[in-house]
Amino acid sequence: MTARSTTRERILQASLELFNASGERSVTTNHIAAHLAISPGNLYYHFRNKQMIIAELFERYEANVDSFLQLPEGRALNIEDKARYLEALLSAMWDYRFLHRDLEHLLGSDAQLAERYRLFAHRHLRSAQRIYQGFVEAGILDMTPPQVEALAVNAWIIMTSWVQFLCSLHGTPDQALDRGMLRRGIFQLLALEEGFVTAQARPAVARLLAQLEGPIVAD
Amino acid sequence: MTARSTTRERILQASLELFNASGERSVTTNHIAAHLAISPGNLYYHFRNKQMIIAELFERYEANVDSFLQLPEGRALNIEDKARYLEALLSAMWDYRFLHRDLEHLLGSDAQLAERYRLFAHRHLRSAQRIYQGFVEAGILDMTPPQVEALAVNAWIIMTSWVQFLCSLHGTPDQALDRGMLRRGIFQLLALEEGFVTAQARPAVARLLAQLEGPIVAD
Repeated sequence: MTARSTTRERILQASLELFNASGERSVTTNHIAAHLAISPGNLYYHFRNKQMIIAELFERYEANVDSFLQLPEGRALNIEDKARYLEALLSAMWDYRFLHRDLEHLLGSDAQLAERYRLFAHRHLRSAQRIYQGFVEAGILDMTPPQVEALAVNAWIIMTSWVQFLCSLHGTPDQALDRGMLRRGIFQLLALEEGFVTAQARPAVARLLAQLEGPIVAD
Repeated sequence: MTARSTTRERILQASLELFNASGERSVTTNHIAAHLAISPGNLYYHFRNKQMIIAELFERYEANVDSFLQLPEGRALNIEDKARYLEALLSAMWDYRFLHRDLEHLLGSDAQLAERYRLFAHRHLRSAQRIYQGFVEAGILDMTPPQVEALAVNAWIIMTSWVQFLCSLHGTPDQALDRGMLRRGIFQLLALEEGFVTAQARPAVARLLAQLEGPIVAD
């Protein structure tokens, strides 16, 4: 790795850390430069403004989600896949939590990002439908296609709104979010489909739910 | 009604209309005064700033939701109650849609409102749990108490996130929202519990779902 690419990467990593810890709004490019002990000019050489940093972090988030939200090739889905999808979603939510903390603001201030997000949402909804349909075909869920569509939409909303929900319900500052609170969000995702689980898959799904259950961190 | 209370009421109504039509951020107190053909001084006499108008509109929204999100007294719940709750939620979502369009911003700029919203969310979650539990006791839903709790949380998130979801998925400007798109949100709420409906209640719930179904207005 060249010195140039190393600095670029360090800026992205530090930005992600700071955005997650304090919220994107309260972090300036000067904070990021100071945190890395580099000059603002050095930072600008790599990223002309904060929006460019956010856009690149969003691309990474997107590539990450796209990479795991796929049907396995050449075999049917099984319960282990369900656990794998949920864990991968939890990690993505956690690693890029600043994105979901204040999405309206981020999309409102960058039309290009808003358009990119819109396409991502459509793609994600289609992938989620294919995956839920795969669980139907594997005999794990018993649902009609309209039910699969409604489930995919509800799952997307729960996933993308969970962080905001926690913050508005608890007045949780960004710093106080922890991975356990996000784990409960994954439990809520799985709860969406619980009523449609087939009799044969019920014991395995119940075990998965028991692993994920935790308090909503209510007062 | 005195002239004073009439003006005050007109300011509230005009603000609600303008916030819903264009988004709260792009409406100033000067716009509101101009819209009503009153002087900014006259508006300030009734409301010192926009936050006070928003706070009072939120109180009305809250009072409205609190008034219908109650168990009926002295009788069990029935399917007609389910239709009634959903229609009332749809109306509240529609009438005060600006609140859900950009909630993070509203709560972020007014700590008192954020605290009030937090209490409202907790109260609402408890009411929703009592009502879902009432449907269990009426033989309409078949669920355990943890399932009822998870359902109430998911329902709250879908209800409060639906408007944002539409806007981020379609790039819908505020002006283009219509009541039909919100109706689909009510369908999504009902879809949450579909997997738990008892055999005896299934035909009636299916009829209710068919009435509410509509496109997600996807492209």
